[in-house]
Amino acid sequence: MARILILGGGGMIGQKLAFHLAETGWNGQPAELTLHDLGFPPDGAPAAQRITGSLAEDGAAARLVATRPDVIFHLAAIVSGEAEQDFDKGWQVNMFATWALLTALRAEHEASGGQYRPRVVFSSSIAVFGAPFPDRIGDEFLTAPLTSYGAQKACCELMVSDVSRKGVIDGISIRLPTICVRPGRPNKAASGFFSGIIREPLNRQDAVLPVPDTVRHWHASPRSAVGFLTRAGSMDISALGARRSLNMPGLSCTVAEQIEALRDVAGAAAVARIRPVPDEAIMSIVAGWPQDFETRRAAELGFVAENDFGEIIRTYIADDMPSG
Amino acid sequence: MARILILGGGGMIGQKLAFHLAETGWNGQPAELTLHDLGFPPDGAPAAQRITGSLAEDGAAARLVATRPDVIFHLAAIVSGEAEQDFDKGWQVNMFATWALLTALRAEHEASGGQYRPRVVFSSSIAVFGAPFPDRIGDEFLTAPLTSYGAQKACCELMVSDVSRKGVIDGISIRLPTICVRPGRPNKAASGFFSGIIREPLNRQDAVLPVPDTVRHWHASPRSAVGFLTRAGSMDISALGARRSLNMPGLSCTVAEQIEALRDVAGAAAVARIRPVPDEAIMSIVAGWPQDFETRRAAELGFVAENDFGEIIRTYIADDMPSG
Repeated sequence: MARILILGGGGMIGQKLAFHLAETGWNGQPAELTLHDLGFPPDGAPAAQRITGSLAEDGAAARLVATRPDVIFHLAAIVSGEAEQDFDKGWQVNMFATWALLTALRAEHEASGGQYRPRVVFSSSIAVFGAPFPDRIGDEFLTAPLTSYGAQKACCELMVSDVSRKGVIDGISIRLPTICVRPGRPNKAASGFFSGIIREPLNRQDAVLPVPDTVRHWHASPRSAVGFLTRAGSMDISALGARRSLNMPGLSCTVAEQIEALRDVAGAAAVARIRPVPDEAIMSIVAGWPQDFETRRAAELGFVAENDFGEIIRTYIADDMPSG
Repeated sequence: MARILILGGGGMIGQKLAFHLAETGWNGQPAELTLHDLGFPPDGAPAAQRITGSLAEDGAAARLVATRPDVIFHLAAIVSGEAEQDFDKGWQVNMFATWALLTALRAEHEASGGQYRPRVVFSSSIAVFGAPFPDRIGDEFLTAPLTSYGAQKACCELMVSDVSRKGVIDGISIRLPTICVRPGRPNKAASGFFSGIIREPLNRQDAVLPVPDTVRHWHASPRSAVGFLTRAGSMDISALGARRSLNMPGLSCTVAEQIEALRDVAGAAAVARIRPVPDEAIMSIVAGWPQDFETRRAAELGFVAENDFGEIIRTYIADDMPSG
């Protein structure tokens, strides 16, 4: 029995990860899941325990790790837009709560006489990077975030690495591409349109495109994200050496290429539902985002993502598209 | 009158900076100095105020910035070796106290209706980098520290940049080379020998060399460090854009080149005082340190350091060597 704690276990990726682990288990053993989040969807993933609350509450981290889970997935965060609007909340939730988690893990490590040293998978983001960029961002490119969210993620990566170096945890930070196609309703994230222009037409709804179709970005499907997390949680990471922050693979494509893939899968009527409504604010945010990566280290370590955008669309249809 | 606060104002660099500012003023005005540190040397630099205490104490940061200094030099830190031995203290003093400082500055910024936006110069270090390195570390190389001290400095850089991006301060982080020749008595820092093998022989004492003379490292004199700080404190830094962390110039040379420079300045008798005593622990630490940089951005912004190690030695003799 592998005891697995998912922080942010009520979110889109957390739920998909939980469903996956409940079904497939963990390294040949059943997975006993504890999910923690502010709330959970109805008909959510099965779990031995669902705990409702914020990791930023006093004592929350210590209570959560008191059972010494074997693996901890830390996906809890407030999103980029909210962290930008509420500076204090962003730093408290996205950075200081991670510090509290690491501090609680250190207390358990010490209480166990150094025996307890869990795998911790920290969900980071390509938001740790900021323009200007080379054509392809390599594994040795600097982290110069242009948002508070990115700065908070970058700080957490440094902490996860340092606590790991001290032997307290066996941590890894994986920098996720933009996850596309996100299921569900449109949200207000500046990146929302990358999913919206595919999801809405497939569901016979209109979609708005706020940027030129020449915009290039870095994508991976939710299914790939679950694959990254389970791989990061179970692989031997000694090959990482001291550099425990890893750019995840993805697919670099333009909005025009996304739209062509939609046409291939769903026809011209679907494409006709995409309405260009230029939005200067979104254009300016997106201009600071990474467009392409060369993820050599991740490839060597066996992380894989989609090879073309059609595959990403078909994954959405298979995994998430509402029937009918 | 420019009101200048130096945190870490009792330390070697803080004192040199204070002496310099007391003598030369600030942009043509007199400098009113407030120095803060755990303690101050006798016969120290003149200052309007000397405040004794730790920046990590509750409320210390808020009290220190309540007078709204025009420029703040943040040089306060516990050193690399101590941060490595005492994990909690390192993070509390080197990272959380910086957060407390930035939080206090934000409170003043808001209380002033957004008018107060001081220049903050954060003293960072090449310890934010960790091996493996390219032959020369460029301005876009990743920060992958191999010590807690380096991780703490890298976190502070991210915070200084983010708070600056929000318009609360006008901050800059400068990554100092190893400062050589450090005056005074030998200390236990792993890097101490770089200064010791010059300073001790010049003062007719024996010095120990714990590494092979092929070791290459990145140096600048204390006088250059004061130059970096005053430039960072007074220049227009809008040219930095969003990337407010800057590798400082320095001199890359081997220990053998240091020794040849000593021979040129002080003769064979001085060199004969250097005794090789290989120390595996120090060799292994030093193996993870940067050896050379290409500091193009700093050069474009007018930062300058020494061009040969003889210049560094002559600076020590002129500025710091005890007479007699």
